[in-house]
Amino acid sequence: MALEPFDVVDLIRTKRDRGTLTTAQIDWMVDAYTRGYIADEQMSAMTMAIFLNGMEREEVSALTLAMVASGTRLDFSGLDKKTTDKHSTGGVGDKITLPLAPLVASFGVAVPQLSGRGLGHTGGTLDKLESIPGWRASITVDEMMRQLDDVGAVVCAAGSGLAPADGKLYSLRDITGTVECIPLIASSIMSKKIAEGTAALVLDVKFGSGAFLKDIEKSRELAQVMVRLGEDAGVATRAVLTNMNVPLGLAIGNANEVRESVEVLAGGGPADVVELTVELARHMLELAGVTDADVEAALQDGRAMDAWRGMIAAQGGDPDAPLPVAPESHTVHAETSGVLVEQEALPFGIAAWRLGAGRARKEDPVDHSAGIDLHAKPGDTVEAGQPLFTMLTSDAGRFARALEALEGAYRIGSAGDEVHTGGPLIAGVVE
Amino acid sequence: MALEPFDVVDLIRTKRDRGTLTTAQIDWMVDAYTRGYIADEQMSAMTMAIFLNGMEREEVSALTLAMVASGTRLDFSGLDKKTTDKHSTGGVGDKITLPLAPLVASFGVAVPQLSGRGLGHTGGTLDKLESIPGWRASITVDEMMRQLDDVGAVVCAAGSGLAPADGKLYSLRDITGTVECIPLIASSIMSKKIAEGTAALVLDVKFGSGAFLKDIEKSRELAQVMVRLGEDAGVATRAVLTNMNVPLGLAIGNANEVRESVEVLAGGGPADVVELTVELARHMLELAGVTDADVEAALQDGRAMDAWRGMIAAQGGDPDAPLPVAPESHTVHAETSGVLVEQEALPFGIAAWRLGAGRARKEDPVDHSAGIDLHAKPGDTVEAGQPLFTMLTSDAGRFARALEALEGAYRIGSAGDEVHTGGPLIAGVVE
Repeated sequence: MALEPFDVVDLIRTKRDRGTLTTAQIDWMVDAYTRGYIADEQMSAMTMAIFLNGMEREEVSALTLAMVASGTRLDFSGLDKKTTDKHSTGGVGDKITLPLAPLVASFGVAVPQLSGRGLGHTGGTLDKLESIPGWRASITVDEMMRQLDDVGAVVCAAGSGLAPADGKLYSLRDITGTVECIPLIASSIMSKKIAEGTAALVLDVKFGSGAFLKDIEKSRELAQVMVRLGEDAGVATRAVLTNMNVPLGLAIGNANEVRESVEVLAGGGPADVVELTVELARHMLELAGVTDADVEAALQDGRAMDAWRGMIAAQGGDPDAPLPVAPESHTVHAETSGVLVEQEALPFGIAAWRLGAGRARKEDPVDHSAGIDLHAKPGDTVEAGQPLFTMLTSDAGRFARALEALEGAYRIGSAGDEVHTGGPLIAGVVE
Repeated sequence: MALEPFDVVDLIRTKRDRGTLTTAQIDWMVDAYTRGYIADEQMSAMTMAIFLNGMEREEVSALTLAMVASGTRLDFSGLDKKTTDKHSTGGVGDKITLPLAPLVASFGVAVPQLSGRGLGHTGGTLDKLESIPGWRASITVDEMMRQLDDVGAVVCAAGSGLAPADGKLYSLRDITGTVECIPLIASSIMSKKIAEGTAALVLDVKFGSGAFLKDIEKSRELAQVMVRLGEDAGVATRAVLTNMNVPLGLAIGNANEVRESVEVLAGGGPADVVELTVELARHMLELAGVTDADVEAALQDGRAMDAWRGMIAAQGGDPDAPLPVAPESHTVHAETSGVLVEQEALPFGIAAWRLGAGRARKEDPVDHSAGIDLHAKPGDTVEAGQPLFTMLTSDAGRFARALEALEGAYRIGSAGDEVHTGGPLIAGVVE
């Protein structure tokens, strides 16, 4: 390191004192951090300074592109199909990628989704898919290319070569209390999606109890920042603001969410899961130039299901194999008759996590059979003694702490009481 | 670590969100950090959060006492003398400890000063003393005790057993841009001084160009916080606010500062060095219960000099040995006649540092012969061609960059022009 154009301590001081970092400074910083010339403790001070003092639009854009440049960027321009993808900021019962990717692919568009695992109360798409016997999350870029050509949809693990700076920075933020910061969230998500090589991207930005950001205005701000970052990087980007105050669908977990997704692909499934799948599919297709797609028909006539079966089989999975079933279950019944007026996403997410469906640390295993099956949704009329939900796990010792999380999370009221859902499922679109 | 009462990420979030940490949380945090259970990157995020969001009085006090408790605290209660010490926040030409410690000791009071090395443009007392042939900075606690008993004054290196948490935290702050923060500066200084075991303490808190804090109000705030911390810990503490806009005395460096100190001990020396030495000696003696000391007399009649010779000899130094002389020198002369109206401390400190008197990194060596001898002070009448100052070094290649630092740092004006000194040397006392 004979020639260092910048001094990292000067850069930290600049951000600490509410200054603006130049693109050259950010490029240097991300490169030096990736190569280990800037220590974790220095980057962590920088990250806290960014958390507390913010970043200008140009800084967030520079940070995002520098993280993309820290690794390889996939290129699907050789493909005979247009590429389009979706990213969700995460929620409770959010299995939408599972029906969505094959549904969109059934219109001749490619969906190259590099996905992640769950952490905390939000599930991970790869964890859900791994409950399918034989299915592999890790495939090579060549296999990915072939699968996009043949089947059209891929959901797989991101290799370590994509935006490695983001991986390093995210691990650091996770242990230093600097996760919930819009410039850092936006650049983290978008650097991975830009590196993924998709030409179009729909962001499902959630708000409410079970979302990463509770407040709709914060979610809108995050959506706006991410849409700009996508457009700045040449990716056609749109965001949908969606309500995560209530769990999505009737299944929260892994295997049970796959089951529910297959119901949707078979033309059935819960109304909210279908509504969001259809909405996101339309946006993804529009951005890929397919404007008149009858996506409901593709769910009804088996085209989406065929794409699903192809997608699962291409990654070694058996779409007909039985899914894991939890050896232990515990059903909670309604104590009174009335209307279910509350079913809060976050406690249900935490309970499913405690039952074994999620993990507290990256290296923890997941219990694919664990989770919660809901038997009623807010607004439903219930009778005393009727099952409200069933907890599933491999370890009966986990029911007690799961029930603890659920205390006060659901409530039966009288007909005419306000039903707490926090508004409609789809709250707006940011372009 | 089976039982962890707190989660460090929660504590970081608390401070990040402008909350207050409890004493139990701070105790746990400092202990866990000292023992390596909290990672540097976590502490560095915490430190930046403290820098930007501040600390309540109780938090600073808890942090200070927790850092004291992280190591051993010396105990001089077995000594037949009262103990009193001084700490300076550092300046340019600040050799005051050298005449001050023996002067105070000559009144039968013990001065147990654990001191540090210089970093950047401010010199370190140990570096200056190490220009005396044979003198050792490292002595054992038993040797220290004996020397306090015999001679009364000790200036030596702090062992690693005193406030180790502070040492660890300071190294971290140094590389993460979190040095200039009053709660952290105050707790760092005071934890070391409290652990040192002195019963009384006078703080020389400097402000101005050559000081760590430029602004007198910031210095006053630091002084107030430190005086409270001392009193909270049972140390009789007082602070003197002193002006560091102009170098102290006529010597900036190491060996040349020892020479100047010896002049003061011989009853001569520059007026400003004598004034500050006498002022600080009076406060130190007052806090130790000696209220009628004629400190000027002790400088004139050789008592202070005797204590100096005893103090140097006790640590292996030869008070009569010739001090290192710089092989290279370069004198700058006045270009015009007039009055020296400006002589700014910081550039002179930086120039002396560049000549080799200081160090950029802890592990760098120091050139004991390097520095600057001033031949005129602000307000002095000078004739064209008269020497203004002489730069001293072992490496003539260093003159150019030293002169660069001095560009615009001094100015000759006309009689009647305002002389820029930033006010009197002693600006106030905080008790």
